Amino acid sequence: MNLEILDKLIEKFSKFPGVGKRTAERFAFYILELNSQEVSEFVSLIQEIKNKVRNCKICNNLTQDEICSICKDPRRDSTLLCVVEEPRDILAIERTSVYNGKYFVLLGALAPLEGIGINDTKIGELVEYVKNHPEIKEIIISTDADMEGETTANYIFKLLKPLGRRITRIGVGIPLGADLEFVDKNTLEKALKFRKELS
Amino acid sequence: MNLEILDKLIEKFSKFPGVGKRTAERFAFYILELNSQEVSEFVSLIQEIKNKVRNCKICNNLTQDEICSICKDPRRDSTLLCVVEEPRDILAIERTSVYNGKYFVLLGALAPLEGIGINDTKIGELVEYVKNHPEIKEIIISTDADMEGETTANYIFKLLKPLGRRITRIGVGIPLGADLEFVDKNTLEKALKFRKELS
Repeated sequence: MNLEILDKLIEKFSKFPGVGKRTAERFAFYILELNSQEVSEFVSLIQEIKNKVRNCKICNNLTQDEICSICKDPRRDSTLLCVVEEPRDILAIERTSVYNGKYFVLLGALAPLEGIGINDTKIGELVEYVKNHPEIKEIIISTDADMEGETTANYIFKLLKPLGRRITRIGVGIPLGADLEFVDKNTLEKALKFRKELS
Repeated sequence: MNLEILDKLIEKFSKFPGVGKRTAERFAFYILELNSQEVSEFVSLIQEIKNKVRNCKICNNLTQDEICSICKDPRRDSTLLCVVEEPRDILAIERTSVYNGKYFVLLGALAPLEGIGINDTKIGELVEYVKNHPEIKEIIISTDADMEGETTANYIFKLLKPLGRRITRIGVGIPLGADLEFVDKNTLEKALKFRKELS
């Protein structure tokens, strides 16, 4: 349609996670159909979120304050520390309602081939944090189950081991409800490796 | 996570077409991960698009100028007029590359049950347009294949019939109940090729 500005917006939406050209077009037309008030609300939210949302000074989770709501919450079990790569991983774990401990967000994972090393993540700060919190009895390493996550998990394990706490890795295996035949080879391999004794 | 502002943005994204809660969350986190320059580029595009994009004075298609690129193009066949509901339908038809005529956008469809009548669309202007353009030999009514689109097509047919032009309805291939903009390219191509004479 030769509408340079519409094409530009479609291009921006195409970069959203999981969004293809057609969906990006729908989004652009959706924006066009919003009224002025809806547009300015949307725009201010986006601007605000960049200004107001920051990382918790303690655990790096997202927060609008200095310290996040989980770190502040006295009802959370401070003997448990769950280590994740990104703040959104906390959202996923919180959704399960089975975990009531604290978190530490690495804000990344080791990817030596891409030049992402220890200093590009908060691994150093994690070690300090554990040292300064003798109440922590167990550290649950919940990095992703991909190569970067595994590398990071192994590295953290080596660093934390001398501190004498219990260190566990979040269970890796067949997702609930999955058909065995459709589970990919690597997951199946891990699932077999991490088989559990029945009793 | 008790982040009011993040929740608000997730809610906004949930209203995008075809976007559920989980996808909206991914979008909000995507925004959070953009740098300041990327955010301001995105925000200005959205603001600009609302200010700069308007409807063509002739056919109601979207344009950044007074008159859209299709109306301006002397190579388009002005004996053919394709009537669609929305500007995005033009995008879908243009993608097929089989149509080289002009367009007229109704900016809506009749929905008597929802109180949307003739004056809420550009049907009146369409009739005027056809009257003032004796060169138009065929009008291809390409409204959606849903109830509103069919109602609109029938109504337009009755209004235009006395003007003595050939009137066709986009036909074979469009699944019943479908929104024209989401129909795949090949189906749309077929539908245009096999358009039916109305009598």
